[in-house]
Amino acid sequence: MNRKQDKKVSSITTPRGFRAGGWACGIKASGKPDLAIIAADVPCTAAGVFTRNRVPGAPVIVGKRHIRTGSARAIVCNSGCSNVCTGEQGIEDARAMCSTLAGQLGCDPRDVLPASTGVIGHMLPMDKIKSGIVRYTPHLSRGPQADDAAARAILTTDLTPKHALQYVTLPGTDHRITLAGIAKGSGMIAPNMATMLAFLTTDAAISAPLLKQALRQAARVSFNRISVDEDTSTSDSVLILASGLAGNPAIDYENDAYAAFVDALVMLCRDLAYQIVADGEGATKVFRVTVINARSSRDADRVGKTIVGSPLVKTAVHGGDPNWGRLVAATGRSGAAVKPGQLTISINGIDVCRKGQPVAHHAGAQAKLDQAMQQREITFTIDLGYADGPHDPAEWLGCDLSKQYITINADYTT
Amino acid sequence: MNRKQDKKVSSITTPRGFRAGGWACGIKASGKPDLAIIAADVPCTAAGVFTRNRVPGAPVIVGKRHIRTGSARAIVCNSGCSNVCTGEQGIEDARAMCSTLAGQLGCDPRDVLPASTGVIGHMLPMDKIKSGIVRYTPHLSRGPQADDAAARAILTTDLTPKHALQYVTLPGTDHRITLAGIAKGSGMIAPNMATMLAFLTTDAAISAPLLKQALRQAARVSFNRISVDEDTSTSDSVLILASGLAGNPAIDYENDAYAAFVDALVMLCRDLAYQIVADGEGATKVFRVTVINARSSRDADRVGKTIVGSPLVKTAVHGGDPNWGRLVAATGRSGAAVKPGQLTISINGIDVCRKGQPVAHHAGAQAKLDQAMQQREITFTIDLGYADGPHDPAEWLGCDLSKQYITINADYTT
Repeated sequence: MNRKQDKKVSSITTPRGFRAGGWACGIKASGKPDLAIIAADVPCTAAGVFTRNRVPGAPVIVGKRHIRTGSARAIVCNSGCSNVCTGEQGIEDARAMCSTLAGQLGCDPRDVLPASTGVIGHMLPMDKIKSGIVRYTPHLSRGPQADDAAARAILTTDLTPKHALQYVTLPGTDHRITLAGIAKGSGMIAPNMATMLAFLTTDAAISAPLLKQALRQAARVSFNRISVDEDTSTSDSVLILASGLAGNPAIDYENDAYAAFVDALVMLCRDLAYQIVADGEGATKVFRVTVINARSSRDADRVGKTIVGSPLVKTAVHGGDPNWGRLVAATGRSGAAVKPGQLTISINGIDVCRKGQPVAHHAGAQAKLDQAMQQREITFTIDLGYADGPHDPAEWLGCDLSKQYITINADYTT
Repeated sequence: MNRKQDKKVSSITTPRGFRAGGWACGIKASGKPDLAIIAADVPCTAAGVFTRNRVPGAPVIVGKRHIRTGSARAIVCNSGCSNVCTGEQGIEDARAMCSTLAGQLGCDPRDVLPASTGVIGHMLPMDKIKSGIVRYTPHLSRGPQADDAAARAILTTDLTPKHALQYVTLPGTDHRITLAGIAKGSGMIAPNMATMLAFLTTDAAISAPLLKQALRQAARVSFNRISVDEDTSTSDSVLILASGLAGNPAIDYENDAYAAFVDALVMLCRDLAYQIVADGEGATKVFRVTVINARSSRDADRVGKTIVGSPLVKTAVHGGDPNWGRLVAATGRSGAAVKPGQLTISINGIDVCRKGQPVAHHAGAQAKLDQAMQQREITFTIDLGYADGPHDPAEWLGCDLSKQYITINADYTT
């Protein structure tokens, strides 16, 4: 889950067969971009994962229905208004977004996937959205400018657009495929399909069932292992379109090519997940929680989830305070099996608690520890000491909790 | 769960048969009081509820063992150091606190219940604690000064001591019994036996099994329905001693007298719970979440717990922003059964969402709503619309999330 050092500017139109764009159509009072469209030149296989919130937004309800066929042609997304808690009218509005774009592209409305993000409980200004779609669809294009415009038009309280790009040469072939994505999400982000929004494109040829399986697997170890504030939104969706234009032999069973595709997709999603956490509302630091030797994978996730969500851990990280007692308390209340006498905790590799007892540090180690806590990235390792536990550690990402989070959220609405 | 308007100064020594006190014995660098003792003149029946954290502090482990007999004579508590993550030495230290006080009082060490609160991962300074117990036990006394000294000596980041007092005349008798309590708790407070500490006294004569049952019932609807920050501590304990000196016929089966006792105990615990929330770290407002017409009591609690714990709801309350979409989002992710089309939400009695759709307000109602959100107390009512749901609404209490919370927690330790 390492941050990409080389930030690529181009992204979702880099895989062959996609055009994109982002514009201001007047939903946001600020006049900032609020309409994004991603369209494929050819029919694509498609997959999605969606929020588990029991009050999903209308676009989630419509998107889930549209994606059942396993194919799609385009994604249309507005920011500034989430179309949640809007009853039957909301469903009709989400459908109208799809049919308007379908009319422009000459495809079936069910081949368009809708998404909306923003304030809950307001009706979409459909006049603005429809005329925006009609006006701007002819301007869809390829390249860094189009990518960035789309990435910016899906933002709400985010400070930065989020792009990711991965290339992979499929084993046993000379086909290089490209995967790319944009994402938004800054607050109301917590595990459980909780990415806010991520839109991914690839030129791989892959069957719809395997695309779906790969997306679920990648989301589980990336977007589902981050937390900004424990609030799971009503709108979270991750959508992927695969154009097949890379020309590779279609991936339609779990061979080496599929494994390589999944690896690349995981890296892509982790890259975006990292960017979401780093841009968490008010965040100044990112911390990684690596849980090892848990009794089960589920227990490892419980501990990781609880620690990245703990306000006391988040404020300790903010203050640069090596107050590891808060890691102990969060571990203990996570619901995971914990034997206090075999609990070992380290901060950036320095043990602070060994077999349930404090480790006394000489001055040098204490200075190193204090220094570690001042970094912009901190790693906590929680070793639960079950030697026969799962071999894969669970890696979770969280950000600190700052006064800026309060400022942003005490005043955002209406 | 109304706040007592008439704040009584006297509390834990008001029931007949108790002495108390609080002193500084040098654990806190600040020199503030850090040792509290409550002692009974006679053997008491006793009960306790404790944290469910899997890494409980040594005093919790020892206290649970000591209370198994259903009787006790005294409580000894220090603040400033929690004696958590301290291994076998920690257990010995908690026992030594008990045996030192027992030596002074002339009782069995197992008749003393220990408690500690403060930073995790440090050894108790036993010399200071033991000599403090020896020096101060002779000064145990009755009356407002003693009560207040004890209440202050158990505080950490709390701003105010917390007292409560209840009188009840048992039905069918002319015996008036008294119940009283002190509590501490300001941060690291969340449902699941999560009160930090509350020590209760009563002069009722009541059997140990019924005292335990009454305490569990009262804790469930008071201390277990509050949240400051979703962090369940390793030290939370609620202890009650019953001296029997009111002279009432012993309550030893579930008669009307028992019911009256439970009612009074519930009121006592809710009073303390309210004070804990109102003194939440950085809190400026208290909000009440009343969940009605849930499919089950468990679902009602899920919704209440999720809303009082939601950072986005807490910051909206702080900002006085009627952003009810955040109530919708929290309700939807709570795990409770929710049918969006039958969800109705009101703020201080004003409907904002009816049957899953926004309610348009004329200017007068909107002004009332804005005004409601500016109050120091706000009530959110969540009606899940299951007409055959449980009749008892679940009432939860939470506080706002302010910049002061960050300030307090980014710097507190070590």
